[in-house]
Amino acid sequence: MTYCVGLKMDSGLIFMSDTRTNAGLDNISTFSKMRTWSTPGERAIVLLSAGNLATTQAVAGLIDERIRTPRAGRPSLMETSSMFQTAQLVGSIVKEVIHDTAPVGQSADAFGATFIMGGQIRGEGPRLFYIYPEGNFIESSPDTPFFQIGEHKYGKPILVRAYEPDMSEEDAIKLLLVSFDSTLKSNLSVGLPLDMQVYRADSLALVPGRRFERNDPYYTAISEGWGSALKAAFHSLPSLES
Amino acid sequence: MTYCVGLKMDSGLIFMSDTRTNAGLDNISTFSKMRTWSTPGERAIVLLSAGNLATTQAVAGLIDERIRTPRAGRPSLMETSSMFQTAQLVGSIVKEVIHDTAPVGQSADAFGATFIMGGQIRGEGPRLFYIYPEGNFIESSPDTPFFQIGEHKYGKPILVRAYEPDMSEEDAIKLLLVSFDSTLKSNLSVGLPLDMQVYRADSLALVPGRRFERNDPYYTAISEGWGSALKAAFHSLPSLES
Repeated sequence: MTYCVGLKMDSGLIFMSDTRTNAGLDNISTFSKMRTWSTPGERAIVLLSAGNLATTQAVAGLIDERIRTPRAGRPSLMETSSMFQTAQLVGSIVKEVIHDTAPVGQSADAFGATFIMGGQIRGEGPRLFYIYPEGNFIESSPDTPFFQIGEHKYGKPILVRAYEPDMSEEDAIKLLLVSFDSTLKSNLSVGLPLDMQVYRADSLALVPGRRFERNDPYYTAISEGWGSALKAAFHSLPSLES
Repeated sequence: MTYCVGLKMDSGLIFMSDTRTNAGLDNISTFSKMRTWSTPGERAIVLLSAGNLATTQAVAGLIDERIRTPRAGRPSLMETSSMFQTAQLVGSIVKEVIHDTAPVGQSADAFGATFIMGGQIRGEGPRLFYIYPEGNFIESSPDTPFFQIGEHKYGKPILVRAYEPDMSEEDAIKLLLVSFDSTLKSNLSVGLPLDMQVYRADSLALVPGRRFERNDPYYTAISEGWGSALKAAFHSLPSLES
């Protein structure tokens, strides 16, 4: 499995993904599930993927192919004029890849993949989308400011509880690490290292991404600190008077 | 869906279950998923169920039928001489019910149900079992001191982090309520009221069960307190120095 989160706050967007892929429990590999494209001053786009690895790699590959080989009447990811158009473009590629792979008359479920795509194109604000295997998509809103794909249940309660739209970039990083740590502690199919990408609103450029490796001191501090902080929080609650 | 937990600590066992059943989002009902049997001084048994409601009711119904109509060579739930035998008995009834219901040659998945069964019979200590739809079962151990059935992912991280074998009964109640609250906040298919049953080791009797209704003051205190305590815990963590 996989766990990826894209979160929108007032100050921009933040993306995090694990890197574990598995075909059976004894065939585990590390693949990044995060891809970025940008033209500084003009656009910055981040794509997270979950699902069939051949499908997600084919989607990224086709996006790159079309950037390399532009064709009239078909804008590439670097030419779309809005994030909505970009989501349409990625959605149509997803649909095409899955349709081409699934044997005729058979279900395409095994080749399915879902995506989180976010970023900004000059002329509009930062936007965040969730793209389905069918190629259609939804956009985040103040009511639903984050999307999760993959093994999303373990890490959801803390996102629901601690998210604030005006949280700082540092707090958002902390929040995502706690959410990932809860998932890692509960599910073997999600694994370190973690990839992170911050997008600051209206910067139209990507700051360098960061990878949290197995012994990353900050990740370790969060993971251990969260264990103790959670226990302290738990013990601060009142007991039932019987 | 459903969410039920059975947890074993040094001082005994504790069971909690939600009461929501749904056939589609617009057909929601309240059914208790907890059943108890006891002969004070001799045995006390608690059964939690998740899955097809007709199956779980049929299992409980057959258990009761066999207690009412004893037959030689087939001990009822009130006559088994160990918890292992009791798990075998319940497992065989589960298997029988699912087998009788599923159309010939078709998968029995739709009629599936899983159970948590625990308690104590005089002559041995308290024991806790997880019974599969196939009728086989596993027993808890110091390494795996709790079982969850139904919508188990949201509420697992706090169980993993805060469980201690020597925790008090009050702390165990608190822990289960926090785990249920995390699940209720994230998943509509799990709903109040919650049923709780405590079994104190070697008491061989059940203390009165407790139901937490929608406006239960203690549940409300835990739910609201946990929100604030979690935020405080979160803010106590260090920020990433960039």
